[in-house]
Amino acid sequence: MTTDFSGRFLGVLGGMGPLAGTYFVQRLIALTPATRDQEHVPTILWSDPRIPERPAGFERRGEDPLPWLINGVSQLTRCGAGAIAIPCNTAHLWHEQMSAATNIPVLHIVGSVCEELQRRHLQNASIGLMATAATTRAGMYQRIMARDGLRCLVSQTPEFERLCAQAIDLVKRNQADAAFDAAAKCVEMLADLGADVVVLGCTELPLALPYARRTSLRLPVIDSIDTLASSALRWWRQSDPHDAPFAPLHTASKPGV
Amino acid sequence: MTTDFSGRFLGVLGGMGPLAGTYFVQRLIALTPATRDQEHVPTILWSDPRIPERPAGFERRGEDPLPWLINGVSQLTRCGAGAIAIPCNTAHLWHEQMSAATNIPVLHIVGSVCEELQRRHLQNASIGLMATAATTRAGMYQRIMARDGLRCLVSQTPEFERLCAQAIDLVKRNQADAAFDAAAKCVEMLADLGADVVVLGCTELPLALPYARRTSLRLPVIDSIDTLASSALRWWRQSDPHDAPFAPLHTASKPGV
Repeated sequence: MTTDFSGRFLGVLGGMGPLAGTYFVQRLIALTPATRDQEHVPTILWSDPRIPERPAGFERRGEDPLPWLINGVSQLTRCGAGAIAIPCNTAHLWHEQMSAATNIPVLHIVGSVCEELQRRHLQNASIGLMATAATTRAGMYQRIMARDGLRCLVSQTPEFERLCAQAIDLVKRNQADAAFDAAAKCVEMLADLGADVVVLGCTELPLALPYARRTSLRLPVIDSIDTLASSALRWWRQSDPHDAPFAPLHTASKPGV
Repeated sequence: MTTDFSGRFLGVLGGMGPLAGTYFVQRLIALTPATRDQEHVPTILWSDPRIPERPAGFERRGEDPLPWLINGVSQLTRCGAGAIAIPCNTAHLWHEQMSAATNIPVLHIVGSVCEELQRRHLQNASIGLMATAATTRAGMYQRIMARDGLRCLVSQTPEFERLCAQAIDLVKRNQADAAFDAAAKCVEMLADLGADVVVLGCTELPLALPYARRTSLRLPVIDSIDTLASSALRWWRQSDPHDAPFAPLHTASKPGV
C-alpha cells in the first residue's frame, strides 16, 4: 500500500521576528474552524531569524535583506508550499521581487488589511497606521489603501516614531508585556489626530497589544497578523467545494467599526 | 557578491496537534536568550495535521501514522534540517523507526524530560505521569525513566483516563481555557496517589495548564514541551564556542522540587 502524502501546504516565511512568525501560525490555527487535528491547514514555517533588519536595509543603513528574502521564498517553494504568507509588513516593501522569484502566489499583507477594512465598510473612516518608520516613510500602506479608496492617517512625529519603535523592539526582546504602554500611547496619539480605527501594520504590534487588553484601547484595531491568516485560510479553502462564505473575524468595539 | 545562506536549522515535525507544534516553536523562542531576531534558532516547522491519530494507530483501532511520520521526518531532512524535534509524546512510540528513516538526530522527548528530572535532583521522588492512555499503556515513560533510575507513577483508573483525554481533546478543539479543570483534577488525583511532581507527558497538556495558572496546582509540573525545547536549544548551541552552561529553566513551586 502506498500513501498519498501530497496536499496543499501553506508556506510561511517567518523569523521577522521569530515570535511574530509562530504567532501567525497560532492565529491561523485559532481562526480555522476545526474540531480535530486533521481539519487544520498543513503548514511549512521557514523561520530564518538571520534575515537582516528590514527597516535598516530598506533605508540603506544596513545589510540588504532581499537576497535572504528571496532565499526564504525559494526554500519554501522547493519544500513544496502552494502559496506563501509573510508575517512581516516591512518585508512587503520587496513583495514584487519576492513574487518574481517563485511561481507560487505570495499573499500581500497590506492587501489582506484592505480586504478587512472593506469588509467592515470603513471606506469613509480615517484609518490610523502604526508601523515601522520605514514602512510609513515608504508609503506602502498609503499607496495601496488609496488605490482601494481608503484613507490612511499617519503620524511621523519623533515621539510617535519613538514609541512605536520601542513597542516593536520590546516584543523582539521577549518583553511583550512591557510593550503595551508604548503601543497603547500610539493608539491614543492617532485617536487625537482623528483616527477612527488603527491598523497594526507591523507584526510585532499585535503581540504588544494582546486580545485581552484591546478593549481598554481608545480605538478598535485591525490586526495585520489576523488579516493575513484569514487571507491564507481563504487561499487554502478556495479549492474546497464545501467552502462557505467567510464570516467576519473581528468583533467591533465601536459602533460602525 | 554571493551570500552564504547555509546554517543549522532545527526541524520540527508538528501538527500533532497543530497548536502544540507552534507552541513548541514559541517556547523555543522564549527560552532562547536573545535581544534581537538574528540571535534566534533558525527553524523549519513541518506541520502536517493530517498525520493520523497516534493513540488509535498504536492500538490498531485506526490508520497507521508511521508512514506519515516517516514522510514528515524525510521532508524535514530534505528541506535541510540538522536535527528534528517532535512535539508529540505519543509519536515517540515510533521513535526508533523515525530515527532509522533519517541520517540526522531525532531528539527524544522522554529523554529530555528525564534530563530535566535529573537536573532537578528528583531521583528519589515519585513522579506522576499525565499522558494519552496509549503512551501510558505502552510503558514508554516507565521504561525510559526506570533506565535512568527514576520512579514513574501512573494512574489507569477510568476516571483519570477520561479526564486526561478530555483535557487533551479540548485543547485540540481550540478550547484550551475549558481544559484547565479536567487537567488540574488529574494533577490532584496523582497527588492523592503520592506523587511529588507531575510530568505533562502529552504536548497538549501544557496548553491546558498555562504558566499563569500553574501556581494554583497542588504539585509542580515538568512540561515536556519546555524540556524538548531546552534539548533543541542545547543541540543548536553545542557548536557555539561561546556556549555557557545551561541555567535551570524552571522555577520550583515546592521545596526540593
